[in-house]
Amino acid sequence: MDGETDLAREMAALGARARAAAEALRETDGATRDAGLRAAAAALRARSAEVLAANAEDMAAAEARGLAPAMNDRLRLDAARLEAMAKGLEAVADQPDPLAGVLAEWDRPSGLHIRRAPSPIGVIGVIYESRPNVTADAGALCLKSGNAAILRGGSESARTAAAIHAALVEGLRAAGLPEDAVQRVPTTDRAAVGMMLADMADFIDVIVPRGGRSLVERVQAEARVPVFAHLEGICHVYVDAAADPRKAQRIAVNAKTRRPGICGAAECLLIDARDPAPGAGALRALLDAGVEVRGCPASQAMDNRVRPAAEDDFGREFLDMIIAARVVEGVDGAVAHIRRYGSSHTESIVTEDDAAAARFFARLDSAILMRNASTQFADGGEFGMGAEIGIATGKLHARGPVGAAQLTTFRYLVEADCALRP
Amino acid sequence: MDGETDLAREMAALGARARAAAEALRETDGATRDAGLRAAAAALRARSAEVLAANAEDMAAAEARGLAPAMNDRLRLDAARLEAMAKGLEAVADQPDPLAGVLAEWDRPSGLHIRRAPSPIGVIGVIYESRPNVTADAGALCLKSGNAAILRGGSESARTAAAIHAALVEGLRAAGLPEDAVQRVPTTDRAAVGMMLADMADFIDVIVPRGGRSLVERVQAEARVPVFAHLEGICHVYVDAAADPRKAQRIAVNAKTRRPGICGAAECLLIDARDPAPGAGALRALLDAGVEVRGCPASQAMDNRVRPAAEDDFGREFLDMIIAARVVEGVDGAVAHIRRYGSSHTESIVTEDDAAAARFFARLDSAILMRNASTQFADGGEFGMGAEIGIATGKLHARGPVGAAQLTTFRYLVEADCALRP
Repeated sequence: MDGETDLAREMAALGARARAAAEALRETDGATRDAGLRAAAAALRARSAEVLAANAEDMAAAEARGLAPAMNDRLRLDAARLEAMAKGLEAVADQPDPLAGVLAEWDRPSGLHIRRAPSPIGVIGVIYESRPNVTADAGALCLKSGNAAILRGGSESARTAAAIHAALVEGLRAAGLPEDAVQRVPTTDRAAVGMMLADMADFIDVIVPRGGRSLVERVQAEARVPVFAHLEGICHVYVDAAADPRKAQRIAVNAKTRRPGICGAAECLLIDARDPAPGAGALRALLDAGVEVRGCPASQAMDNRVRPAAEDDFGREFLDMIIAARVVEGVDGAVAHIRRYGSSHTESIVTEDDAAAARFFARLDSAILMRNASTQFADGGEFGMGAEIGIATGKLHARGPVGAAQLTTFRYLVEADCALRP
Repeated sequence: MDGETDLAREMAALGARARAAAEALRETDGATRDAGLRAAAAALRARSAEVLAANAEDMAAAEARGLAPAMNDRLRLDAARLEAMAKGLEAVADQPDPLAGVLAEWDRPSGLHIRRAPSPIGVIGVIYESRPNVTADAGALCLKSGNAAILRGGSESARTAAAIHAALVEGLRAAGLPEDAVQRVPTTDRAAVGMMLADMADFIDVIVPRGGRSLVERVQAEARVPVFAHLEGICHVYVDAAADPRKAQRIAVNAKTRRPGICGAAECLLIDARDPAPGAGALRALLDAGVEVRGCPASQAMDNRVRPAAEDDFGREFLDMIIAARVVEGVDGAVAHIRRYGSSHTESIVTEDDAAAARFFARLDSAILMRNASTQFADGGEFGMGAEIGIATGKLHARGPVGAAQLTTFRYLVEADCALRP
């Protein structure tokens, strides 16, 4: 009870420092924030031995507790991954300033000159699991966009996150920026997460969860502040009758197999019944690549390696070398399937027919719609944002890869020379 | 119990119809939606006798129940107000299509061509009180932006709202648009509001409350979907030492007295201690205009008509011919006061000093910041949006006057020629 109260007091103090840092950041210029990012990259390189040693301790502790190998791989840092992290900080610094300039500007007959100007959101809370790069990426994107960050990583990566965080703070200090601009929740007490979600609405404007389904579900259920997130990536590849067969095969295989465990991996192949040949070719290419295909009866007839799909294989996020397959009636059939089973993340149509692509784009409302491209491109780096703090499938404010620009809001700045409303 | 179940079933059916209409609206073009708005304006004029008769019934019922005169004035329609409503529909039709074109467009070295394209949000729920024009304005802005609307007005204006809604539906029908694009909740059962807020998250994407503080508070407390709203408009006018005294007087008087009951009315006058003369002049002009001024000791010394302010007079929304006044130390003093007592709605600085205005703009985070303009301009029509569905003081998605453009979201449309992620 007393512990809880102490923690609540500690978290409120941390929140108040974040709010004060956010107010100070609002007045900084883009060049200073970029200097902080570059100094942080330099500090990360200078402290590499320290960071790798901290990571080795985390890894040893994880192995001692018998953590799954996949989790261990996510947790593991090496010199190459550390250098990629430093380069990521510099890539964010290289991006245009999301707070510069105006979004729109116009005059009114009343004499008002109105500007719609970008503005930081305020304080972003990031709750994540074991990937060390999230500490650097999330901190960098918040700083770039003039927001203060409160980072809460998983306990299994606490030593690594602390070492990376120390480098970020060194960068902030070198650029004369407030050290509280990027704070790390020091405790591994799980109650701290609940406080960020429910009790710190005065101090946190948006929560970004980065991690598995159970983390995101908890955040969405408990959060009393807006959340930028996606629960699942049920991504579809629809091979239209007018697809180039060779493109269909290559795109389907890349979309599923390049990295089957990421949210942009394809989970369902849809084949146009009007001419199933290109889709059937894609289906065989997936089987040849070692993918288990679970299909509807019509797709089972295309290749005897296709296993029968259960109803819940549609709309299922396999995150593995498994894909569902279904034959549908043209674009409208694909749209109907995706509306029913999709998660509004990313869908791709393979077609040479402009009208089919236009109809697919017009009728669907996923955050990302693609034509003749692999769904694995659903990523802030691939979109040219330098990095991403996450991918959002909600409809408001941020959608798709969330980069620095989506961490901003706007204000109206109105100037006149004694304008009175009649 | 059975009644509740019937109502729940009825509301779910209404929600499903709205969702279907939203999917159909997504594929309409701007010209068709504008034709629907113009046809609705024509229908409103053609049915004016019917609408005014319905309004007369609502007025008679309100008087019989002894409603407050202010409420009666809000409820009352006449030929001029009806014509203004029809002109409002046409003004929305005249606005540019918020769904046309792209928000941004770029190429990537991987071969991706990425467009960020506007897209409707989906279904907007509007909960309002007695103003008849909200039925027309809200329905029009939702239609303009390709969203389906579910309108729930107060019981005291039910007959008027039904008659106006019938004209909107006639317009939809004339343009070949789905009649369910603008639906009205027919029941006056208050439980329907609770269902819109908590049980219809599958059918409603955003709720917009239009009405008094108690309505907005209820909506913000109960809503399980995002809300575009402002609880209060605690608007400040800060008269800087470098203000033109004549402008300061005129702006302060207009900001308070033009219509003291709207959310953009000034509730507090801040006077720069470094040279209080221009602010003192504004204070005397307010007193001369019949405004009750409740001030800090320093402002009481400026004119013996100033009454002492209680602490809770700062940050108070008077919505009346009353204003608080305080002497502060320059721009930074004003900023500190507004951060403590403001509601992030609208603040105005009166100054001829560019540096003072720039500092005021840089340090505050209200939805609207003004220089040498009356806070009463905080209005979608005055901003050139044709109309507004409300004013939002939240930080995400919509801020300030919410017009058709803020009722849209976006999707990424990505095209390539067989792009595979390495």
